[in-house]
Amino acid sequence: MAMVKKPVTGMKDILPEEMQIRDYLIGLIKETYRSFGFTPMETPCVESIENLSSKQGGENEKLIFRILKRGEKLNLETATCAEDLVDSGLRYDLTVPLARYYANNTAKLPSPFKALQIGSVFRADRPQKGRFRQFTQCDIDILGEPSELAEIELILATTTCLGRIGFKGFVIRINDRRILKAMSAYSGFNEADFEEVCIILDKMDKIGLDGVKAELLEAGYAEDSVNKYLSLFEAGEGENRLAVIGKILVEAGVLEQEVLDRLQTIMKVVGESSTTEFNLTFDPTLVRGMGYYTGTIYEIGVEGFPGAVGGGGRYDEMVGRFAGQKTCAVGFSIGFERIITILMDEGFKVPEEGGKKAIVLDKDLPAERYAEVFQKAAALRAEGKTVLILTKNKNFKFQKEQLTAQGYEDIEVVYKDEWK
Amino acid sequence: MAMVKKPVTGMKDILPEEMQIRDYLIGLIKETYRSFGFTPMETPCVESIENLSSKQGGENEKLIFRILKRGEKLNLETATCAEDLVDSGLRYDLTVPLARYYANNTAKLPSPFKALQIGSVFRADRPQKGRFRQFTQCDIDILGEPSELAEIELILATTTCLGRIGFKGFVIRINDRRILKAMSAYSGFNEADFEEVCIILDKMDKIGLDGVKAELLEAGYAEDSVNKYLSLFEAGEGENRLAVIGKILVEAGVLEQEVLDRLQTIMKVVGESSTTEFNLTFDPTLVRGMGYYTGTIYEIGVEGFPGAVGGGGRYDEMVGRFAGQKTCAVGFSIGFERIITILMDEGFKVPEEGGKKAIVLDKDLPAERYAEVFQKAAALRAEGKTVLILTKNKNFKFQKEQLTAQGYEDIEVVYKDEWK
Repeated sequence: MAMVKKPVTGMKDILPEEMQIRDYLIGLIKETYRSFGFTPMETPCVESIENLSSKQGGENEKLIFRILKRGEKLNLETATCAEDLVDSGLRYDLTVPLARYYANNTAKLPSPFKALQIGSVFRADRPQKGRFRQFTQCDIDILGEPSELAEIELILATTTCLGRIGFKGFVIRINDRRILKAMSAYSGFNEADFEEVCIILDKMDKIGLDGVKAELLEAGYAEDSVNKYLSLFEAGEGENRLAVIGKILVEAGVLEQEVLDRLQTIMKVVGESSTTEFNLTFDPTLVRGMGYYTGTIYEIGVEGFPGAVGGGGRYDEMVGRFAGQKTCAVGFSIGFERIITILMDEGFKVPEEGGKKAIVLDKDLPAERYAEVFQKAAALRAEGKTVLILTKNKNFKFQKEQLTAQGYEDIEVVYKDEWK
Repeated sequence: MAMVKKPVTGMKDILPEEMQIRDYLIGLIKETYRSFGFTPMETPCVESIENLSSKQGGENEKLIFRILKRGEKLNLETATCAEDLVDSGLRYDLTVPLARYYANNTAKLPSPFKALQIGSVFRADRPQKGRFRQFTQCDIDILGEPSELAEIELILATTTCLGRIGFKGFVIRINDRRILKAMSAYSGFNEADFEEVCIILDKMDKIGLDGVKAELLEAGYAEDSVNKYLSLFEAGEGENRLAVIGKILVEAGVLEQEVLDRLQTIMKVVGESSTTEFNLTFDPTLVRGMGYYTGTIYEIGVEGFPGAVGGGGRYDEMVGRFAGQKTCAVGFSIGFERIITILMDEGFKVPEEGGKKAIVLDKDLPAERYAEVFQKAAALRAEGKTVLILTKNKNFKFQKEQLTAQGYEDIEVVYKDEWK
């Protein structure tokens, strides 16, 4: 068979320049969350097909890379559908594996368990610009902490991390699934319609209040309910918005005061404790797609860059489906690939430490002189310098240009009789 | 479908304790090779099935995890064998992907290309203790450097790295495929028998000279040839061995003087330039399995631990099969999982920087006091300390033990009215 030079469809080779930025970002993330007491963890890239098809992954389950059974288990003759040939697949996110991992290892893990996962996930998505079938996710989760301490820690750790990356002026929007539910109930929508109403509400930033109104009416909802619903989004202003909307919902008996208090505490404590400058606002239109959220939800945006660079929330039910007992969970997913794209687009350079030096050996240099070169290089490396040793090319001018482009501005040539 | 708590057969969850050691080791490897001018790179975990089945991977090709085609391409009705259902698979090593990557990106890569790859590889091996179906490989390669500078750099960088990990008294055995071939030719074996003779020779450390002799005779080789062959392994002693054996082969016209000179230069320069203490010896019985080696080969062992912790060699043909033109290549693969096992068995502790502190919040602490706690934590974290904030459990004695086990010896409790 002929060799294929290209990566498989939809996946990519990572060139050294991008790789250096990725390594730098991973280092920074690990270091920041470590200082908040998070511990790294890892699960295999391959998961049982049962877990991947458990309806926890929503649309992503359609995008699973399925792995063929092996040996005697693979029975092509009697297989009637693809599922008969498959027993595992590549993970499409890090959340399902985290829930499995926690259930499998609870006794060996600290409580609460503060986990940091950075790993590849795989989705057989339609290939499109900037979207790949293998990409890195970065998830931070606190399992087993029922109180709002979990949300506060996650938001503070993540904003500290974004600040260290160099982002300025980012915005965190926050909401609670229970407020979304209460708004829906307050307006007279049926509980069964909650998801659909939210899907339409989620378009607010694109189609505006009038657009949402039109879509809700078109979907057949009563005009009274729609008007009551939309009036909520005009209630209150700025910092007052949460208090005003919350009061309406609590007084109508559709929201517990505790939900409101907790969200207010989170916002207040984060505001008073942050070492990084950013904007934290209550946004009653924030929905977030994944159906497994049960409480607080949040999303980070960076000024000047469309789309979110992170988001997450509380999902108190999902881990329990594996563990067999209720397990509180709050997570934050950092948009690792989105941040890499931003840094690459901005021409970000990884801070160099110690400097770089190239030692170029002339073709005629006798082998007896090599040790002298390597000894000198060793001494410089011990001081933290990067030292590249290579053979002099015929076209030395071109070689020098190449070296300079790689950041080697200090170039020394070792000739038979001299260094220069 | 029911959820499955366990990882898929043969794969493993990595617990925080091991993960910290892995992260530490990866950091140390990246830092060391960076200082030698190596750049990180990455390829997808998934490769075209053509590349994986190209006979470059030897026995490993039987162990491929094959991925089902998707959508319309998957035609179950007309499939007559598993191959009809498959267009890609999980990579079983990092060498085939490196060759493809280099061929695909040559114009964008520096020359020579000094690459560091750390990544997961997958083999559907029979599950057994300490051997997993997903594991990390760590490969360092220099592509495009024909001279022995490549071997010298790789050995020096790798020994520097092992020294920094803390290994003492390790041994590097070195040989050259062309010496193995010359010994075979010198003894009168047919060229076609070279591989089989080497497979038997490779057992020398287990079955000794007499065992090798018995097996060669049993395989039907002429006694004269066998005796001549084995006499070579008794020629010379210690530092003289290479010179003595080399002289015999060169004088017999089966080895070029240049091969001998190069190997002697490598050994001499490495010996004189190393900053780490280790033993470098010529070992004419060293074979190394992979058929793609064309020149120098080497292997590292650590005193007190059976098996190799690394190895590699020159493979000047393989990359060319992808690139379409001859490309010199020398590689070193560090036995990442082997080193992790050794460190875990030795009870290795990752050096802590900055110290660890736990702040435990009493149940009755009012939310108004949270900001004070998070502010104090932020100040300590800014000094490099790891600060864990958590809620006080009913069984505080047990909680304290747990924290101490995690390395939190400095534990402070925040009560409603005091810190203590």
